[in-house]
Amino acid sequence: MKAFNDLADYSHEEIRALVDLAGRLDSHPEPEALKGKVLSLLFLSPSLRTLASFQAAMVRLGGGSFVISPDMSIHGLEVRDGIVMDGVAAEHIREAVPVIASYGDAIGIRAFADRKKIENDLAETRFNSLTELIDTPYINMESAMNHPCQSLADWKTLDDFDMPANGGKFVLSWAYHPKALPLAVPAATLHMAAMRGMDVTVLRPEGFELPAPVMQKAIFAAEESGGSVRETADRREAMEDAHVIYAKSWASTRHYGDRPADQKLREQHLGWCVDESWFGNAKDDARFMHCLPVRRGVVVADEILDGPRSIVIPEARNRMLAQMAVLHRMLGGTS
Amino acid sequence: MKAFNDLADYSHEEIRALVDLAGRLDSHPEPEALKGKVLSLLFLSPSLRTLASFQAAMVRLGGGSFVISPDMSIHGLEVRDGIVMDGVAAEHIREAVPVIASYGDAIGIRAFADRKKIENDLAETRFNSLTELIDTPYINMESAMNHPCQSLADWKTLDDFDMPANGGKFVLSWAYHPKALPLAVPAATLHMAAMRGMDVTVLRPEGFELPAPVMQKAIFAAEESGGSVRETADRREAMEDAHVIYAKSWASTRHYGDRPADQKLREQHLGWCVDESWFGNAKDDARFMHCLPVRRGVVVADEILDGPRSIVIPEARNRMLAQMAVLHRMLGGTS
Amino acid sequence: MKAFNDLADYSHEEIRALVDLAGRLDSHPEPEALKGKVLSLLFLSPSLRTLASFQAAMVRLGGGSFVISPDMSIHGLEVRDGIVMDGVAAEHIREAVPVIASYGDAIGIRAFADRKKIENDLAETRFNSLTELIDTPYINMESAMNHPCQSLADWKTLDDFDMPANGGKFVLSWAYHPKALPLAVPAATLHMAAMRGMDVTVLRPEGFELPAPVMQKAIFAAEESGGSVRETADRREAMEDAHVIYAKSWASTRHYGDRPADQKLREQHLGWCVDESWFGNAKDDARFMHCLPVRRGVVVADEILDGPRSIVIPEARNRMLAQMAVLHRMLGGTS
Repeated sequence: MKAFNDLADYSHEEIRALVDLAGRLDSHPEPEALKGKVLSLLFLSPSLRTLASFQAAMVRLGGGSFVISPDMSIHGLEVRDGIVMDGVAAEHIREAVPVIASYGDAIGIRAFADRKKIENDLAETRFNSLTELIDTPYINMESAMNHPCQSLADWKTLDDFDMPANGGKFVLSWAYHPKALPLAVPAATLHMAAMRGMDVTVLRPEGFELPAPVMQKAIFAAEESGGSVRETADRREAMEDAHVIYAKSWASTRHYGDRPADQKLREQHLGWCVDESWFGNAKDDARFMHCLPVRRGVVVADEILDGPRSIVIPEARNRMLAQMAVLHRMLGGTS
Repeated sequence: MKAFNDLADYSHEEIRALVDLAGRLDSHPEPEALKGKVLSLLFLSPSLRTLASFQAAMVRLGGGSFVISPDMSIHGLEVRDGIVMDGVAAEHIREAVPVIASYGDAIGIRAFADRKKIENDLAETRFNSLTELIDTPYINMESAMNHPCQSLADWKTLDDFDMPANGGKFVLSWAYHPKALPLAVPAATLHMAAMRGMDVTVLRPEGFELPAPVMQKAIFAAEESGGSVRETADRREAMEDAHVIYAKSWASTRHYGDRPADQKLREQHLGWCVDESWFGNAKDDARFMHCLPVRRGVVVADEILDGPRSIVIPEARNRMLAQMAVLHRMLGGTS
Repeated sequence: MKAFNDLADYSHEEIRALVDLAGRLDSHPEPEALKGKVLSLLFLSPSLRTLASFQAAMVRLGGGSFVISPDMSIHGLEVRDGIVMDGVAAEHIREAVPVIASYGDAIGIRAFADRKKIENDLAETRFNSLTELIDTPYINMESAMNHPCQSLADWKTLDDFDMPANGGKFVLSWAYHPKALPLAVPAATLHMAAMRGMDVTVLRPEGFELPAPVMQKAIFAAEESGGSVRETADRREAMEDAHVIYAKSWASTRHYGDRPADQKLREQHLGWCVDESWFGNAKDDARFMHCLPVRRGVVVADEILDGPRSIVIPEARNRMLAQMAVLHRMLGGTS
């Protein structure tokens, strides 16, 4: 495995095998699998779960890692090409990234969307400009439009809680949040649920439609897996017989990169905070998922997070296990 | 061992066994004891020795750790219950703590006192609100009123330097410091020395008495161990035949949570800086201990720290060894 | 090996053996060599490569490390002697350094030059004041006038790219940079190339001569190895038949510690940016080296860094390998 960048790069069977491996490494630890192996962790965007879970994953497999993040005493990394570096930045990404990669057997990279032009973010311009600099196997730790480690963990979580694949009803719902957040998690989640074979509904207000290429990619995946994809702004319609609601806020695609316009639009939807009233026509034991961090009382009510519907903590723990499976496959010499 | 929170949770014999294990792990390393095991380290208050010594301890036992601290790029963790999180904090402690704990086989947590109401701090309201969120075994890395790792290291240090248990004279002395520091170390130290069976004197100016429940807990421990506990403001009386003086500054309990009043009172005691003149009627080879960090020329004179009385460096090294013993017991499957 | 502080402390053969060991650990990993061993890493000056490469090195050898750096939540460390610590600093270096060292089997220390008086920096006053506090084996991770890990990596890089030892022509060239940088790398590099037996030319404008003791040390090394050392301000003369140019900016020694005067002088040499025109009379396949970080368009042109002459990435990777050799020798019980 040279890269773990997108679930779409793998077949349904390959993803199932990774999920199985994640489970096996939980029940049957392999503390010598990656003995002496190093994972470089490059965070160009902030992190808590990803930072902690990758470090823990490498230790559990007998290896180790090191972290380079922008809040370290490295004087800002220059990213522009052809620049005369007479300002603050003392190092260019063209040197920093290959060097950091060269110390590891693999590298994990996190770089959020620029959130200026949606075309660039859909094309993963920023993330690809980084991976083009290296030969080392790499892991996407969240890019502009993808978060494959989150999606692999979410797939395992759906399995763990016995959510049906074909016939399972998955609602990906927008929620209110004071900031215009990236599209990486909703785009990856939508595709994952469709690829798993579920009937997926994207529930969002007008102006927060996911980009057409994101929808199209999920529709292709659903056609292959026997699932389906649709979207609506009608909460009641979306939640009908739902097995699970996955809440997440994201930026307005109508006003992408235009913060004031986004702000004005989102403030009309302060009521999009998931609470028990959303579940009236869902399955009795419908579950609540979220990638975290989540704002209580804004994205979701306390009664949900603190009640039996929420599976956000085991979902977060699955990040570590999913990543262990990827690292084992990438560095452990297993087929 | 599900928690290492307070020396008082263990018998004298159990503590002695931990101290012995710490020594054995120093002379007979066990670099495979915790192979593949992970310690989560959550610092809600700053640290140097605890941070370094826990990481080193896990490596020496063949495992590893990861650190989450407030100076990382995590946008402040919300701690208030029932809050609408529309401000700066992007994550609530109710999610962050269980998630961080879920990546480790055990978690170490540091959270200093709130220093508002002494009742709350004596009840460990803040620390308990964190440990209530988790099922994982945990280690108290300093709470409002306790610092069991420091105390275990101090017990070993007293052994290493052949301080008598019954019959040994231990002076816990207040010292001047420009800030109102927490009571965790003095409270834990007093109890530890009493539990070890020593004759303990708390030496402090008026207004800096330790809280009654703290004194009472130490008196109970002394009754069990054959030690004794008393307090005085008279330096000469306290130091008579002392084997060791343990210096530490702490907040005025008379003005707890009232910084200006505390400040006014403590400034009357600028002379409480331990120097050679304190040792006139102590044992000839009386020792000086301090948990560090220590302010030179304020809490203690250079002549003491740089002279033969000071054992603060081996005392600090014992932090690592004591913690290795706790981790070995907690995660290594030893009885 | 009690200290790795200066290549000059070792014979030519001993350095060759370390370089060979570095290569062997790359081709034949030893992931159990330092099982359970701990390296303390103390950064009193910032770092990226050193930070990452030492952590990776310890993992590859089966041990681990921890990092203490000034951007952590440690309230500034006091360094002055005999001071009354009633200000911001809560801990003195006289406690912090021995304690941090005591948690490791060895300690790496980075402390840049004070850049006030050149005599003090040449005498390594600051670095020596730190190592005098400890008994632990230590590694110089860059001091005022030395950077032996960089030099060992550079020696290996010259070998890797088949640069002749005796008869090889090595140009150490000053380059423009907006700031007055330390002399550690040029001083160490000059000595390394001379010790390796090369014909070394220091190319620099007037006012940027390296200090006489630095030149003298290199001349001694060249006499022993069959190499030579000279200096010039004439680029054409310096580059004649050169095998390699090693670019680096450094402070004006004429105006050492006087930033405005240094600034005025260096700004007369904005043209000292290595580009293809420099290589007219060099060997056809002459190489470009730099310790990184490097400012593109200021120290060196993009065409060089992105072209076949540049070997800065393998040079940086050799930092990890060189340090693995040192650590293996220091902690692995090999002779």
